[in-house]
Amino acid sequence: MEILRGNAVVGQSGGPTAAINATLAGVIRGALQAKGEGFINTLYGMRNGVEGFLREDLIDLTEIFSDAGKLKTLTTTPAAALGSCRRKLKDYETDAETYARLLEIFKKYDIRYFFYIGGNDSMDTVMKLSKYAANHDYEMRVVGVPKTIDNDLVATDHTPGFGSAAKFVATTMKEVLRDVSVYKMKAVTIVEIMGRDAGWLTASAGLVKLSGGIAPDLVYLPEVAFDPEEFLASVNKTFEDHPAVLVAVSEGIRLADGKYIGEGKGATDAFGHKSLSGAAKVLEELVKERIGCKVRSMELSLTQRCAGHILSKTDIDESLAVGAGAVSAATSGRTGVMMTIDRVPGESYSSTVGCADISTIANEVRGVPREYINAEGNGITEAGLAYLAPLVMGEVDVEYENGLPKHIVL
Amino acid sequence: MEILRGNAVVGQSGGPTAAINATLAGVIRGALQAKGEGFINTLYGMRNGVEGFLREDLIDLTEIFSDAGKLKTLTTTPAAALGSCRRKLKDYETDAETYARLLEIFKKYDIRYFFYIGGNDSMDTVMKLSKYAANHDYEMRVVGVPKTIDNDLVATDHTPGFGSAAKFVATTMKEVLRDVSVYKMKAVTIVEIMGRDAGWLTASAGLVKLSGGIAPDLVYLPEVAFDPEEFLASVNKTFEDHPAVLVAVSEGIRLADGKYIGEGKGATDAFGHKSLSGAAKVLEELVKERIGCKVRSMELSLTQRCAGHILSKTDIDESLAVGAGAVSAATSGRTGVMMTIDRVPGESYSSTVGCADISTIANEVRGVPREYINAEGNGITEAGLAYLAPLVMGEVDVEYENGLPKHIVL
Repeated sequence: MEILRGNAVVGQSGGPTAAINATLAGVIRGALQAKGEGFINTLYGMRNGVEGFLREDLIDLTEIFSDAGKLKTLTTTPAAALGSCRRKLKDYETDAETYARLLEIFKKYDIRYFFYIGGNDSMDTVMKLSKYAANHDYEMRVVGVPKTIDNDLVATDHTPGFGSAAKFVATTMKEVLRDVSVYKMKAVTIVEIMGRDAGWLTASAGLVKLSGGIAPDLVYLPEVAFDPEEFLASVNKTFEDHPAVLVAVSEGIRLADGKYIGEGKGATDAFGHKSLSGAAKVLEELVKERIGCKVRSMELSLTQRCAGHILSKTDIDESLAVGAGAVSAATSGRTGVMMTIDRVPGESYSSTVGCADISTIANEVRGVPREYINAEGNGITEAGLAYLAPLVMGEVDVEYENGLPKHIVL
Repeated sequence: MEILRGNAVVGQSGGPTAAINATLAGVIRGALQAKGEGFINTLYGMRNGVEGFLREDLIDLTEIFSDAGKLKTLTTTPAAALGSCRRKLKDYETDAETYARLLEIFKKYDIRYFFYIGGNDSMDTVMKLSKYAANHDYEMRVVGVPKTIDNDLVATDHTPGFGSAAKFVATTMKEVLRDVSVYKMKAVTIVEIMGRDAGWLTASAGLVKLSGGIAPDLVYLPEVAFDPEEFLASVNKTFEDHPAVLVAVSEGIRLADGKYIGEGKGATDAFGHKSLSGAAKVLEELVKERIGCKVRSMELSLTQRCAGHILSKTDIDESLAVGAGAVSAATSGRTGVMMTIDRVPGESYSSTVGCADISTIANEVRGVPREYINAEGNGITEAGLAYLAPLVMGEVDVEYENGLPKHIVL
């Protein structure tokens, strides 16, 4: 195989996760190795994704991270250190100008490797750019590296960033269970967890049951239509067992007619996604009116996607591995692909890094399969917990400075 | 000094903290030592505070915790392992019957040492019980052990449980700062932190500045009247520096006329405290209307008082020490006292355990002194940060089981 020599660029896009910088650290590690092998000279970081790239807002990561200590700190710094953007490239046919500008910058900086770390919308960018480069006779390898706390990308067993978010969510549910269990009084606590279309993160709340916790008593995901009467009946039934009822709900739960429970508060983001809030609040009001007991709702909000102080070692190891793997895949000639984590079948958990054609991935959403949700639609099955459990395993030593986790700011 | 021999009982009361079980572990450790010294035979735990004691709902802690491993797990289990209650003893004059019943149980179980771990309302119980015992010729030593994330008890430099909550709050603020800084777009994020009358926990958000963080940009405490116009002007002024503005507010911030910002949502608890929520939400609406930029509010809610997975070593060490110290104080003849943490003056931080007459403590609230708050009333001074910084120092190794923190359930 012919060696493609030149420079590389990496960007981050979409919402933050606690592991997206571990993946960046993996790409940097891979690029430093590829430099030694003669493939990549400089690895640039684009600030704020393609938006910054179009402004030529680039920093030299090869230089900054010649210090291994910094790379370690980057690995456990939450949220996109390069900054992010929500810009989705339009189709070439409708915005040729932007593509021409991109090509101009590629040529100016001799960019031959393009790595983009992000979720579904970022994979769409990878698909468009790889097609564009191929159709315009510019040799460049474009590789997507997944990240999303939503775990909703197809073709990969799970996504980097999900395991750490799941560990934070399950840990918090376990701690909230301790908290709400101190009183003897009947009380319902409803915890709202991120997940617009896919309930993976909410499902991870169910992991508390694996370590002796009785809760959460009820778990509701967007994959199953939400029935308010079933919910009220299930709360009342749980009161027969114990006074503190703990409920986990996805922000995106919907009624049978498809209407979001929290719809009233929605606004629309740049991708046409509804910004949801308030599903738990709506259920709080429902319990207040119909059951009349003490009830509290809470949203885990931003903390669940940026809690870098509690990381899953499995997730961070895999996030590093897919980052480094992206560079190997590109230098081996792959383009228009997304890196994947492939679960190795067997008794104990292990995984390998793979890659899949991007056109099969972009804009597809993978929900929680029905067999991971119980028949009643209000809990997670053993099969679901067996899938989730390995992903939160292991702890990462985080560096502290003045009593707080140490972060790197680029 | 004459040795008072008999049994002991310990209870927990008030809202949970992440360190209240470390204090319980300290009392157990102290009781096991006092057993060897001939003072205490059995240490009972009362379930759900005095409420459970009145039902004789007691467990033998001396027996359960003969296993040192269990004591270690208890130390890092959040929220009251014995359960809690919100019952405040009435005055003897108005409820002699309850006191007679208490005395009957004291005699039945030969209770000579009574330890009560809690906040302000619990210290009121300690005061009443110690007076009652003294006035009714029943020799019993009654010692209060403070705990509250609010840090609002007088006579002690700070309260057990505060340091760990402060570490969680400051860590979360630092992580949220990373999260909100990834976009270039103007946006305001308002984080609501617990604190009805005292802003200590919200002030701890300011610690992010000590480790290189630019935020929080604005910090509002209940100790200073909140001025909406100053707030809007300060947000606009901060936009001149950077696009992501991060604001920390206490749930209890009030207007100059004393009206709570979040008053509309208040309900009253058993002590006549208003259960507040919504200060951040109200400010979110204000920013939306008057500035019109992207704005988000979030409440740290229960997580800030039960996040046992991130503990301040200073806090946990001191929580254990005041627990053990309570037993020594009682066996040395002290009664009607609350244990205190006394800061030793000097360059580097150290503390000793002391005790103070309960009548000077109960029902007093210690707010953040004005010199810890800047002149504008929207930030924490260097003196304030110097007071707070040592309290979040050090990390505690927490045991994990199936990827989640291990807890003990009694």
